[in-house]
Amino acid sequence: MRILLTLEYDGTGYAGWQRQENALAVQQVVEEAVSALVKRKTVLFGASRTDAGVHALGQRAHFDTDSRIPPEKYAYALNTMLPRDIRVRESRAVADGFHARFSATGKRYRYQIYSAPHAGALNRNTHAHVIYPLDAVKMRAELPALLGRHDFAAFAASGSVVKDTVRTITRAELCGDGPEYTLLIEGNGFLYNMVRIIAGTLIGIGTGKVEPGAFARAIASQSRLDLGVTAPAHGLTLMEVYYHESDCV
Amino acid sequence: MRILLTLEYDGTGYAGWQRQENALAVQQVVEEAVSALVKRKTVLFGASRTDAGVHALGQRAHFDTDSRIPPEKYAYALNTMLPRDIRVRESRAVADGFHARFSATGKRYRYQIYSAPHAGALNRNTHAHVIYPLDAVKMRAELPALLGRHDFAAFAASGSVVKDTVRTITRAELCGDGPEYTLLIEGNGFLYNMVRIIAGTLIGIGTGKVEPGAFARAIASQSRLDLGVTAPAHGLTLMEVYYHESDCV
Repeated sequence: MRILLTLEYDGTGYAGWQRQENALAVQQVVEEAVSALVKRKTVLFGASRTDAGVHALGQRAHFDTDSRIPPEKYAYALNTMLPRDIRVRESRAVADGFHARFSATGKRYRYQIYSAPHAGALNRNTHAHVIYPLDAVKMRAELPALLGRHDFAAFAASGSVVKDTVRTITRAELCGDGPEYTLLIEGNGFLYNMVRIIAGTLIGIGTGKVEPGAFARAIASQSRLDLGVTAPAHGLTLMEVYYHESDCV
Repeated sequence: MRILLTLEYDGTGYAGWQRQENALAVQQVVEEAVSALVKRKTVLFGASRTDAGVHALGQRAHFDTDSRIPPEKYAYALNTMLPRDIRVRESRAVADGFHARFSATGKRYRYQIYSAPHAGALNRNTHAHVIYPLDAVKMRAELPALLGRHDFAAFAASGSVVKDTVRTITRAELCGDGPEYTLLIEGNGFLYNMVRIIAGTLIGIGTGKVEPGAFARAIASQSRLDLGVTAPAHGLTLMEVYYHESDCV
């Protein structure tokens, strides 16, 4: 039986989603809990390889098991075993052909910004602090340039090896009126660091360090140099992974 | 010169505001930073003795100093010395007769609730988790009973020794439509644990464990037994301390 988990985590204490040597990843912690529960070494397949410090409210991961535990009970059982900064929001059975990563049709992220003279204490791990005032009107005017199907080659971390860099962005909104702002962005897929590069460029436009029109220029030039810096990981949260309705039974 | 600080802190890692033996309090951490900065042992007087786990966005504390540091510079200097979970939002000079606690004319608190089958990971230290669904309409109907000048003797932790238990509540609202809710409450003063007892009773009304009318009954009876349990500390945040306008120059 294939089980799909919806996971929420505070990424502050982890080296990201993906299991690795010499550092604790969210995948490892959840895999160990699942393996202990079903009494067999079990591998998880996550929808998104979130970076160190990045959070999730709606990460998805699937695993296969022979266990007879009713699918919806995994959430309750795993939550008694996991640390408090990782929670299973939901567990359910999916078809054998379903894959948390490859069946995904889209994702939604948020990037949270705190614009104030002093950093915050309560939002220090969830919001990127920007000392300078932000011109939100100017920032909002830039977002429509991202919408639609474009080659986002310029929007990937240098050294990234993906061949097809065409993506479709269906939503890009800056919510809030300060001192906290939230960038909501939704699309059929994202290149490595793409949301953080968009957020960093947008912050640069808001503070005046980046010239307006940067998104349009970078889409045309395919040059990373036309964009701003990569915004810090801890402002980013994976909100939701979308699947075809037929996969969601 | 008397300096007033506005403080924000994540109370998760502290034994509350008040300095104590064998546990680290926010007061001690800030006092040590101020003392190092002005090069003389300095005592802070806080507006509110927040409990262990309780947060603040607008705690106030004053101290006296001979230092010639310009008042508004303390915030910047102290923030380079303090841990990231304590921030000074503002610093300014106040009159010698001003007292962070005794000059206060009112306070505003928020109490955050998360109503869902599973606890949250990202809000685990800022929201009280309630497994059962909440009837927000029923909860909101109870709040007007708190408004006005009443003897809140029933609303204090047992063993509390304050003589005058009359307080005036000027605002009591439940914001949000789930799964997260925020109780906002404002008044000229609060008894020990009063906001947490109000929050716990309100949650009890929302889940059906406490009979509607509890606030009115407890105001009349002055009996703690007419109220629900004390809600957990970590849902509470001290938002603001109010002073006379003439003190705010």
